[in-house]
Amino acid sequence: MPTEQLDIVGTSSIRVDARDKVMGKAIYIDDIQVPGMLHGKVLRSRYPHARIVRIDTSRAEKLPGVLGVVTGADVPFIHGESLLDEPFLARDKVRYTGEGVAVVAAVDVATAEHALELIRVEYKELPAVFDPVEATEPGAPLIHENVGTYTRAASNIKPIPGTNICNHFQLKTGDVEKGFAESDYIFEDTFTTPMQAHCCIETHGAIALVDDETNITVWANNDSPHRARKEIASAFKVPMTKVRVIIAPYVGGNFGGKGGLKAEAVALAIAWKVRNRPIKIMYTREEEFCSTIGRHPSVVRMKTGVKQDGTFVARAVKIYLATGAYAEKGPTVSTFAGISGAGPYRIPNLSIDSYCVYTNRQLAGAFRGYGGPQTAWAYESQMDIIAHKLGLDPVELRLRQVYVDGDRHANGQILKSEGLRDCLVQVAESMEWNSKPLGKNQGRGVALMERAIKTPFGSAAFVKVNEDGTVDVLSSTTEVGQGSATIVCQIVAEELGVPMASVRKAAPDTAFTPYDASTTSSRSTFHMGNAVKMAAADAKQQLLALASKLLKASPDDLTITQGKVHVKAMPERALPISKVLSENYGASGTVLGRGYYYPEMPEGESNYFSRYMVFWLLGAQGAEVEVNRETGEVKILKIYAAHDAGKAINPMTCLDQIRGGVTLGAGFALSENLMFKGGTVLNPSFLSYPVPSALDAPEIEPMAVEYAHPDGPYGAKGIGETTNVPTPPAIANAIYNAVGIRIKDLPITPDKVLAALKRKDER
Amino acid sequence: MPTEQLDIVGTSSIRVDARDKVMGKAIYIDDIQVPGMLHGKVLRSRYPHARIVRIDTSRAEKLPGVLGVVTGADVPFIHGESLLDEPFLARDKVRYTGEGVAVVAAVDVATAEHALELIRVEYKELPAVFDPVEATEPGAPLIHENVGTYTRAASNIKPIPGTNICNHFQLKTGDVEKGFAESDYIFEDTFTTPMQAHCCIETHGAIALVDDETNITVWANNDSPHRARKEIASAFKVPMTKVRVIIAPYVGGNFGGKGGLKAEAVALAIAWKVRNRPIKIMYTREEEFCSTIGRHPSVVRMKTGVKQDGTFVARAVKIYLATGAYAEKGPTVSTFAGISGAGPYRIPNLSIDSYCVYTNRQLAGAFRGYGGPQTAWAYESQMDIIAHKLGLDPVELRLRQVYVDGDRHANGQILKSEGLRDCLVQVAESMEWNSKPLGKNQGRGVALMERAIKTPFGSAAFVKVNEDGTVDVLSSTTEVGQGSATIVCQIVAEELGVPMASVRKAAPDTAFTPYDASTTSSRSTFHMGNAVKMAAADAKQQLLALASKLLKASPDDLTITQGKVHVKAMPERALPISKVLSENYGASGTVLGRGYYYPEMPEGESNYFSRYMVFWLLGAQGAEVEVNRETGEVKILKIYAAHDAGKAINPMTCLDQIRGGVTLGAGFALSENLMFKGGTVLNPSFLSYPVPSALDAPEIEPMAVEYAHPDGPYGAKGIGETTNVPTPPAIANAIYNAVGIRIKDLPITPDKVLAALKRKDER
Repeated sequence: MPTEQLDIVGTSSIRVDARDKVMGKAIYIDDIQVPGMLHGKVLRSRYPHARIVRIDTSRAEKLPGVLGVVTGADVPFIHGESLLDEPFLARDKVRYTGEGVAVVAAVDVATAEHALELIRVEYKELPAVFDPVEATEPGAPLIHENVGTYTRAASNIKPIPGTNICNHFQLKTGDVEKGFAESDYIFEDTFTTPMQAHCCIETHGAIALVDDETNITVWANNDSPHRARKEIASAFKVPMTKVRVIIAPYVGGNFGGKGGLKAEAVALAIAWKVRNRPIKIMYTREEEFCSTIGRHPSVVRMKTGVKQDGTFVARAVKIYLATGAYAEKGPTVSTFAGISGAGPYRIPNLSIDSYCVYTNRQLAGAFRGYGGPQTAWAYESQMDIIAHKLGLDPVELRLRQVYVDGDRHANGQILKSEGLRDCLVQVAESMEWNSKPLGKNQGRGVALMERAIKTPFGSAAFVKVNEDGTVDVLSSTTEVGQGSATIVCQIVAEELGVPMASVRKAAPDTAFTPYDASTTSSRSTFHMGNAVKMAAADAKQQLLALASKLLKASPDDLTITQGKVHVKAMPERALPISKVLSENYGASGTVLGRGYYYPEMPEGESNYFSRYMVFWLLGAQGAEVEVNRETGEVKILKIYAAHDAGKAINPMTCLDQIRGGVTLGAGFALSENLMFKGGTVLNPSFLSYPVPSALDAPEIEPMAVEYAHPDGPYGAKGIGETTNVPTPPAIANAIYNAVGIRIKDLPITPDKVLAALKRKDER
Repeated sequence: MPTEQLDIVGTSSIRVDARDKVMGKAIYIDDIQVPGMLHGKVLRSRYPHARIVRIDTSRAEKLPGVLGVVTGADVPFIHGESLLDEPFLARDKVRYTGEGVAVVAAVDVATAEHALELIRVEYKELPAVFDPVEATEPGAPLIHENVGTYTRAASNIKPIPGTNICNHFQLKTGDVEKGFAESDYIFEDTFTTPMQAHCCIETHGAIALVDDETNITVWANNDSPHRARKEIASAFKVPMTKVRVIIAPYVGGNFGGKGGLKAEAVALAIAWKVRNRPIKIMYTREEEFCSTIGRHPSVVRMKTGVKQDGTFVARAVKIYLATGAYAEKGPTVSTFAGISGAGPYRIPNLSIDSYCVYTNRQLAGAFRGYGGPQTAWAYESQMDIIAHKLGLDPVELRLRQVYVDGDRHANGQILKSEGLRDCLVQVAESMEWNSKPLGKNQGRGVALMERAIKTPFGSAAFVKVNEDGTVDVLSSTTEVGQGSATIVCQIVAEELGVPMASVRKAAPDTAFTPYDASTTSSRSTFHMGNAVKMAAADAKQQLLALASKLLKASPDDLTITQGKVHVKAMPERALPISKVLSENYGASGTVLGRGYYYPEMPEGESNYFSRYMVFWLLGAQGAEVEVNRETGEVKILKIYAAHDAGKAINPMTCLDQIRGGVTLGAGFALSENLMFKGGTVLNPSFLSYPVPSALDAPEIEPMAVEYAHPDGPYGAKGIGETTNVPTPPAIANAIYNAVGIRIKDLPITPDKVLAALKRKDER
């Protein structure tokens, strides 16, 4: 990258949302009141799989204060991001315990809740299946009878007709059987992970309004307003201009959980029936745990052939992801899991099969790093199994085979801007790998991660320069706590040459803010960063042209610093932007900028869910742990975490993303597990679901590696999505290093540790 | 203009707001509820001019339900569009009966009203002045002691220090004294007009919210959100990004009355004190009549020298406009009155003085055609006086001297696109001038008008093309009933080549919709029309470039029709816009357009309130009347009205603008008069203020003349602003033609007619 003099990018500007949040002034969806608003509550299935024989809503409808009751029959529409398979309310049958069956609209929540009790639903139970491997077996109960006929959002989504498999992703390179034959050692292991819950502080909520003309307005805490708009317009078969999605000024946590249609779907269902009244549905914590989405439970079977010196020869991976009752983002999750399923290493012979499998449980969908935590858990655990078996140093073994620039990735693309090796080196140095003395029952381990980035999807932005030189940015990137509003403002301020305080970004509203694919996948800094940079540059060029006459210099010889246009070589020959506008336009001037970024695809790559990735999410972590042999408890002494940011636009935010991710990963490693009995969640509350609190957060040394990307804004890539991914295998590897036990099924709870220690002692 | 094949422009598309209005679904400001909203009421002065000795709000503050009371001392800020002279609430002294002195915020309107009664204000009365001519005389009470020191918005606003004159506009050409000396006849007349009230069906209203960080949000029925934003930001000294003005989806009438800060000012005053609570103030009909603005009462003295054959030699015009207690838009009104003060005729020697004069009455400000009704009343009445005296045909006399292309206007500019002569010819032909037989006491008359157009001010627009090929337009032009939303959508649909139904424009919101100077002066079709046309063309070019590869044709050989990009010569080689996007961008594509129009000014013209006009508002009307000699009543038989639209983007809307304007003009001609006793309005209700109802509307033959403007979108200019202007002199001239009496002071009420008939009979 050319060296640029940067004023704002690269500094830890105070977050633009900090003050509102600290002062308690941030407005969330539940703070929004719309005149005439009603309140909705959802009647949910108590069976994991059952035919709906009859629904009697008549008593509920007669309850004073009830404005209407809707059931699936009233809203014969289907939605779904990847497969059109999900009704707005269950029709004919329910597919999971917690699925919406009816919605009541009433003047207040209490009345709506009362009305739910008056609805009678007659079910006929059906056999159910919960395990993703069992669900793929012949004779398993079919959850969707017609998966083969569902409309697919993209041609590379491949359901297997007549099964519960809604996507089968395959990736083959070389000759894996020949590879195994040529190997000195074969390793075969099975790794599993449970369902993890997002645990956003803010639950899902939405307000929906449908008028007689089928104009649809939805206020939501959704992460991706334009994706929601498109899904709604498609489902209800109206032009997109009739659908307006307004995002609340603040969204209280996302981690992937606030995408798709959740509370939006049930709010739309009742609003479709009770017209011209806005209807709010806020999920309770129990609904949040039981009726939204969680992380895909997984079974990963990994067979690896290596030479005596540890060189990878062949790997076969089978990934089973339990996606629950509807596909939602599952097909993409399984695709991303598959693409990186063999790990970020040069392996000449590969066979990867990734199955996205319906089960009769709550949906699984997008969740920070999706596909990554399940596969990295497998490939990084097995990496240490191999190293130990061959007596090799785990860091050394990784360093020798990790992808570097110029390597051909398993997916076929030639890699560039591959900072993973640097991440591992930084981690090893920071933790004084194999040189720092550790105590009794203490151990250390490392793990790497690689994951695909949503490619290729576009982001668009408008910039408008106000008469006083301040700037409004129109961008549909949603501030969900990750700091994107600050990043967007920093890039615009840098590019336009104005102070941070001069730039303001409002929350998205599809009537006004332009297209953006989604606020997901750590794509915003890269994609929206490029879009707002282009929009700002567009506006800047116009300002320079306007100033050219006034400053008697060619636009090429001008620049803008601190809100003043000046001759590059002579900062004193300067005019404030406001003056440039007023001198050209009197009282009445502006310039506007527009930017649209869509990554250039190599020849031959298709445009949807391609395997080609515009960049890769990369990181390395090291863990130091101490195992209590009496209690089985694992204490994390410290996590060293280096992730490749390309360029840290706001270093503090990057490091915070790492801190948050590691804490999430630590929970996934040691405690988190949404437990089921059959289809029923057993621990749907913060009293019983063991998410780490702030007090449980481990000591963390976060590092943002700046391995610049030539196409990123100022070299930046995304970082936040996958900072949780390497934590569990790093911890598991450290536990092995400490006490010699290998746990392959998450979470690593004290009882599993004690049992493993007991087995080890017995050997 | 090159002949273009137009599909949508030039057709009378159904108004995009028609259905909402007909169905009663249009949302106005009073329909908007903001959570936590309080209600405000204003205590108003009962004296026209008085010192405020003391205000005691303590009892009001203690009333349960009252959240706060604000007086001028709490909001030491000044606003004003042309002169910074107006406090948000009166400080030190009141300058008109009805001026805001204090505002109460309470939980409901009744409590707020009750609290007003508990406020005690001690006044010391001061001598007041009401007549604009008297107010200019030495010794008149000074309403503003320091007018010479007030900050001016532009250098050509020229207050006279030590007087009540807040602007003195002068225009001199040739040698007027020499011209009078060379004249065969000299005519000297004085014409007067009263205050006319806007009578919008919707009164003024605003909701203001100021938070602890001085973020200011105002919901309003203002016609010009960006102008309001700037005025607020300047007054409260905050960056413009901190001020957000959101316009209600619909505004119930404007006619110039909804500009500036009216209800906004008092709502901001109380919101500045009672922080973090939105506070709504809706004006009562009485406040609307007494505490907003009306049309400037005027005295116009016109001295004209002509040759025996009617050729104009010299004209001296003195215009006195009573602007009330604060300048508001008065300086511009007086400037525009002055620029066209001598009428649209070739007159070699001119002297025009136009005075904007403070008086102790309600403000006068912008009102349809401002400056025009007062001056056209004078110059077109005197034209017939001259014609009659010299025995010349009034139409012939006008035709001989009216401006045509290539003439140099009194203001110095060389005229182009001057369709006024065509308007007069069309009117004369339609009414069969001097050939159609009329009955007893019936007569006919014509009148012309010319008025300046706000020049040069900018308009900006964004266009975003959605994934399904529909289009959102971001424009700050406000739909106030004039049909601008339809015009904007028609132009975008035409330029982009998509159906009308595919285009949607939301109401303005300064956080999102880009800069626009104002929705005034009939500038929107021309200025915003150009801006949205540019924005659409920008998007279209990008679409054609994207389609070029797919259709294997150069972008130059492509166009878009009915939402499909196709090879010009081969309409069957076509792709829908949605397909062009998806083929290029997968699921994730868009194009954005931006447009900014600012009229090019000739060399040497300044950028603010220049006398150079980018186009002129032009029209001719003919009236046929019958005078009842018994009652003095004047019955309008028919009005023929031809106005120069350049190009009628939506013919129906143009004709409706003429119908509405003529009805307004007829009211001004025959009945409307906001009557005062001292400073007090005597008829502040629809029971006593005689605005014509629909039943009173005369028969009208509207004609939109299409004298194309080379810089207008598709040749269009504005039309609506001044369609009321020629009506009163046309009627007065017809009355003279019918019964030989000449009334010079509006309105022409039956008592004046009877008195004039009596005087005539006595002669």
